Formats: sequence, structure tokens, C-alpha cells
Amino acid sequence: MRTHAENAELALLLEVAGTPKPGNVDRARDHEDLRFEHFLAGAVGSAAGLRAAESGAPVGEAFEAAVAGMSDQRGGNTQFGCLLLLVPLVRAAAAGDLSEEGVRAVCDATTTADAAGFYRAFEHVDVAVADPPEGTNALDVRRGADAVPELEARGLTLADVMARSEGDGNAREWREGFPRTFREAERILDDDGPAPDRGARAFLRLLAEREDGFVRTTSGPEAAREARERARACLDGEEDPETLAGEFVERGINPGTTADITCAALYVALERGLAV
Amino acid sequence: MRTHAENAELALLLEVAGTPKPGNVDRARDHEDLRFEHFLAGAVGSAAGLRAAESGAPVGEAFEAAVAGMSDQRGGNTQFGCLLLLVPLVRAAAAGDLSEEGVRAVCDATTTADAAGFYRAFEHVDVAVADPPEGTNALDVRRGADAVPELEARGLTLADVMARSEGDGNAREWREGFPRTFREAERILDDDGPAPDRGARAFLRLLAEREDGFVRTTSGPEAAREARERARACLDGEEDPETLAGEFVERGINPGTTADITCAALYVALERGLAV
Repeated sequence: MRTHAENAELALLLEVAGTPKPGNVDRARDHEDLRFEHFLAGAVGSAAGLRAAESGAPVGEAFEAAVAGMSDQRGGNTQFGCLLLLVPLVRAAAAGDLSEEGVRAVCDATTTADAAGFYRAFEHVDVAVADPPEGTNALDVRRGADAVPELEARGLTLADVMARSEGDGNAREWREGFPRTFREAERILDDDGPAPDRGARAFLRLLAEREDGFVRTTSGPEAAREARERARACLDGEEDPETLAGEFVERGINPGTTADITCAALYVALERGLAV
Repeated sequence: MRTHAENAELALLLEVAGTPKPGNVDRARDHEDLRFEHFLAGAVGSAAGLRAAESGAPVGEAFEAAVAGMSDQRGGNTQFGCLLLLVPLVRAAAAGDLSEEGVRAVCDATTTADAAGFYRAFEHVDVAVADPPEGTNALDVRRGADAVPELEARGLTLADVMARSEGDGNAREWREGFPRTFREAERILDDDGPAPDRGARAFLRLLAEREDGFVRTTSGPEAAREARERARACLDGEEDPETLAGEFVERGINPGTTADITCAALYVALERGLAV
């Protein structure tokens, strides 16, 4: 029987192994400076932080530890967003209630110290984020630990920070009880075949369902719209996802948020009995 | 900084990710019932046993725990042989002497209880092994825990058991201070490029250097000779390893022992500074 932390680590590995996932590193494709083995090392490195989450460490502390371990490879940011979703899910599972209500309770219970851990995590790795709204630079995540006094002065919890992250698909999961994660987990369980193949199909469904925030930030709104439309065309059989995967990697269109939610959904599916 | 156990887990993942490795599951190829994700789950599952080895648990106990965790997937035996090499290496590294002398000291210090742990590990998973020599059926590893009274009656340590395993390439490493492992680790460090590619080249060199015992057991001596010769032809540029990989997977020629030593060499290379 795998532990909750082991299921989370396996979800990280199954996510990156699934192919084709248009635009992402997968079993068949690398980016130039971000390769498959960076994700393998990132998963191994994050395991101690995931175990801390399972053992009841505060969410911010466990998340920072997971990100610090993940960063011990030369590819840069591999799984920051995945871990932001996995840590509260693992906490909810360890508390015996891996459900929308259970994970909502974990998120609602976060503190200013958790928010500080989240900010400190940005010091371990470069994360592509959107510019903060006008007038909120004091809380720009890129400030890392420098923003902690401001968090404390305002008494913001990690849940508050997520509530302010408009347009970020992972923050939306945090705010709303992980609805896409749980819905997609059920679709993965209803699917057939090897787990990585199910993950790749989940990725396409999620991308077709909603524009990817990471693509919007890194490649612009036009690319985000295109990625969604072409994922839908793949689902409708009008495009070949293998061909699209090659094209998106070449053009640097990288639906990272969609991969994060795919990973979170694989984790929930593993906890609910997906066999590997 | 990865721990010794984390480096060992990463070595398991890098080994299976390296491609082409003629005849083996790799990043580009699955066997029919033994797929890439089984190795991912096997690596995750073995991590607790590897941590036990690092923490000073007896070799046999740590090995059995690693194999039990590894077996929690539906592919069957994925990394039994890798773990047989990794556990004493991790112990040697944790003791501060990852060298031929250091690992020899670990092996020499094994007890009858360690031998019993090794035998019990065979109860967790089906391992393809050669028939024991005439008159030694009482110590056939396939008897699992049933052989333990015989081990105890004869006072055999795990090192003694390995000394009796003629013709097994992993047992030979145990007996001789892991000479191929350490030599290949240096070649990996002298090589260039991504770690999985270095692993794939190490696999070919090792296969060209000595006939694979697992191929001999599962496909016969003729196939073992052919595998070695054709690996040599790949190194000489007379054969394309990609083509050979496809052919060997199709014919079921699976150089498992060579993969085990490749994994052990990747582990030593990681400990000696191979960057990922």
C-alpha cells in the first residue's frame, strides 16, 4: 500500500510520463533546457516535503520543503504548480477526507505563516508569474521572503493570497475546493488503459475545457485561446495530438497549469483506486 | 542536496529513462505486460527500504522492505536486481566510504538474518532465476522463507549465499567489491550529455563486455552470446542500437543484469557528482 506522499510522488511521475501532452515535456519530448530527467529528479526531491505534509507539518512549511527539494536539478521550475495542489490534497487525505470539503477545510485553516512559506518557496526557483495588479507590488510573489513583513502587517493567510490571485488556475482550485481536480479524477477512473495514457487524455480534456493561465502568462492570450481550441479539435478527432505536441513544443506553447491539474487529478485517482 | 536514498531512487528512474537500451523497457519502449509506469511505481515504492538502508537497518531487512514496496504495482519484477546492488551501496555511502573497500565491508558484515531477509524478498515478487545446482535445492531462492531454517542450520550469511550464486552477475558484484559498478560509474562521469543518455551508453558498454546472466536464464546461452556480440557491433558503429532495441524487445531478449549494473553505476556516479 503506497502512502499518501508516495501516491503524490507517483502522480508527479505519471503526469510527466503521459504522452502526447501538447506543448509539455512528456515521455516522448523534451524542451531544450528542460528535460524529462529534470522532472524525475524534481519528483524525487519533492518527496520529503510531501511526507512532511502527510505527517501534519503546516501547509506552507511542507510546500516550501517540497519546492526546495524539487529545485535540486538543473532544469529550473519543473513542478511548483503541481506541488501547490498536491500539498493540501495530501494533507486532506492524511486527515481522512480527500474530498472538496476536506481540502477546502485544509485551505481555510491556513495561516500567515503558511503564506510566508509560500512566498519563501519562490526563492528556491524561478517561477513564471503574471505581473501583479497595479498597486499590489508589495505582495508580488517574486519578492519572496521580502514580502513577508507585508503579509504579516495585513494578516493575510495563504488562502487569502490565493483569493487575490485572479486568473491563476491553481489559485482557483484552492479557492473553490479543487472542482476541476476532483471532476477529472473521476474521468480518469472511468477511462481505460495504462495510467500515463489516461493522464494524457485528461490533459487534453482539461486544456479543451479552459484556457491555460501559464500559456497566457508566457505566450500571451492569443496563444492561450489557440491552445484551448486546438485541444478541442484533438478531442473531436480533427487534429492529431502527436502532431500538435511537436508543434507546440517548437513554438514554446507550454500549458503548465493544465499539467498541474492533470497531476492533481492523477493523485486523487490513485487515492481512489487507480491501479498502476 | 539529495540524500543517499534519494540518489538511489533517482538512479532507478534514470536507468529506466535511458534509451535505447536494447531489449529493456526504456523511455521509448514497453514490454507487453511490463511497462514504463511499473518501473516508476517500483522506484517510488522502494524508497522507504532505501531510506532504511541509509539509516542503518540491516541489509537483509532494508532489501526486503525495498522489494516489498517495489512490488506494489502490476508489472511484476521491475527492480529486484537493482535493489540487491543499491542497498549495500547506500549502506556504504551512509557509512562514509562508497568505494570497493567500503561496500566489501558492508557485504562481509552480513549475517544469517540478512540472508533470511534476502530469501523472504522472493515471496514478494516472481524473479526469474536459474535452477540451483544439483543437490542444493534446499537453498533454492524460490523456496522463500521456507529455506530459512536451512540457512540457519548451516549458518550461512548473505555474503555466503552470494558466494554460492555462480554465474549470477549481481552476485559476482557482491563477491568482488562491485568492480564493474565502480568502473562504469567513472566512465559515466567521463561521458558527456544528459544523465539518461549516459546511462544508455553505459548499458551498451556493459552488455558488450560480458554476457548477461538474465538473458542466459530466460532466453538461453545462444541469445546471451548474441546479445553481447550485437552490443559490441553497436559500439563499433556496425549496428544501430535503436533498431536492435526494437528487435530485442520483440524477441523477448531482456538484458536485465546489465540494467541492474547500469543502475548501480548511475547511483555511484550521482554520489560522485553527476549533475542532473
